[in-house]
Amino acid sequence: MTINVQTICGWAYEAGTIAMSHFRRTVGSRKADDTIVTIADTEIEQFLRDEIHATFPDHGIQGEEQGSSNIGQEYVWSLDPIDGTNAFASGLPIWGISLGLLRHGTPVLGVIYLPVTDDCFWSEGHDPTDDGTAAFWNGTPIRVRSAPTAPAAPYDGQDWLAITSDAHLHYHVRFRGKTRSTGSTVAHMCYVAQGVAVGALLGYARLWDIAAGVAIVTAAGGVVTRLHSSPPDYAQMLRGTAPPSALLVAPPHMLPILQAEISLLA
Amino acid sequence: MTINVQTICGWAYEAGTIAMSHFRRTVGSRKADDTIVTIADTEIEQFLRDEIHATFPDHGIQGEEQGSSNIGQEYVWSLDPIDGTNAFASGLPIWGISLGLLRHGTPVLGVIYLPVTDDCFWSEGHDPTDDGTAAFWNGTPIRVRSAPTAPAAPYDGQDWLAITSDAHLHYHVRFRGKTRSTGSTVAHMCYVAQGVAVGALLGYARLWDIAAGVAIVTAAGGVVTRLHSSPPDYAQMLRGTAPPSALLVAPPHMLPILQAEISLLA
Repeated sequence: MTINVQTICGWAYEAGTIAMSHFRRTVGSRKADDTIVTIADTEIEQFLRDEIHATFPDHGIQGEEQGSSNIGQEYVWSLDPIDGTNAFASGLPIWGISLGLLRHGTPVLGVIYLPVTDDCFWSEGHDPTDDGTAAFWNGTPIRVRSAPTAPAAPYDGQDWLAITSDAHLHYHVRFRGKTRSTGSTVAHMCYVAQGVAVGALLGYARLWDIAAGVAIVTAAGGVVTRLHSSPPDYAQMLRGTAPPSALLVAPPHMLPILQAEISLLA
Repeated sequence: MTINVQTICGWAYEAGTIAMSHFRRTVGSRKADDTIVTIADTEIEQFLRDEIHATFPDHGIQGEEQGSSNIGQEYVWSLDPIDGTNAFASGLPIWGISLGLLRHGTPVLGVIYLPVTDDCFWSEGHDPTDDGTAAFWNGTPIRVRSAPTAPAAPYDGQDWLAITSDAHLHYHVRFRGKTRSTGSTVAHMCYVAQGVAVGALLGYARLWDIAAGVAIVTAAGGVVTRLHSSPPDYAQMLRGTAPPSALLVAPPHMLPILQAEISLLA
């Protein structure tokens, strides 16, 4: 089947308009798990579900706020209406709308839109093993950071690693550059895809946090793995049967370096 | 003497326009200390120096890029043309223009402008011991977070502490909420002044990184101290004779909590 990624980007822009109409006007409330949800999350997820139902009636949908429907289908969307709701509710600028599409449990397409900075990231190509896949930022092709030619070091003190906001409680990070934590997992994945960050340590992510980002970062030449292990099992994550796991997102040459420089705190 | 803070805000907005004309178009180069400087830093510092010279010919000036002149004067400006140059050069949205005014070595007025999010913070009142001081964000009075009424905890897992980008290498942070590191010291101070962050751990700051922020956060009811010690000696910092020191910025009730939860790594 053909999916026009520009249609999906159009939904993301519309969702961004909804989000901006609430930004700095909305106070969040606490969900059962004590994270924050805002009226913007709820409105945007409903908007995206309606668009998907109308355009792809046989696709399944999993969303952060409203749960799953028809996730046994060949194609399933995994949606985060606002990734970084805490940052959104604080008035910080880095948060985004994330639409990931899985085929047979593998992320094959992603669109991520960060409205405050008007950054739209997307991937093209439906299969990450297909050489025709590519990733874009506002129309420009993007690529993860390349390995430097020796004897240059793989990174220096001005380079930065994106880390999860609870990294200080769970990990010993020996990365000898800067770390940044902005509040948005999807933004961190895009910064790696774009070559701006040299890697990202994600906390215990759910599929909607990463489905779009996995498609984009993979299309940009990056890899996503569990911290000291193999890639996550996205099909298991979709079914909710995957054990929680921290993830690393990086260009291939940075992966072993970051695995050596990050360990769980005792 | 009378200083119209709206004039200073006007300079900050003009500086922001200069910065935005370079944002995402400029690549930084390395300074002798291996930090990044961009053409925007240089242009903005010259613009601000010219405005100050023309308006306050007897004031001293200290700037990040061009050094100090007449710092023995009663009034001295401490300027950071772009605080967060690394973030600026990465295309990240949180960086800002910072103008602090010291009188006899004490920060008495600050203006900080974050152009991407169009956030202007300033303080009014020339003496932080004067009850007439107040801080503002885009015209709205701001105040640091108030102490909650017992038995509520002073903060919870959704609250966040701003930390320096090298905190992972130097500090053990046991704060049981989120940490964020955006790349801009001045933004972190403003987020505390605004009550959005419950505190900030700043790295080894120079006076131009903090002069404006100290005036703003103090006017908003916050405190600035060395990590486990007394307030910094700003007059010594101006003369360049203060030993480098990490700083805490917080509402008064959070200060002892953060001092207990942050220690130097062995």
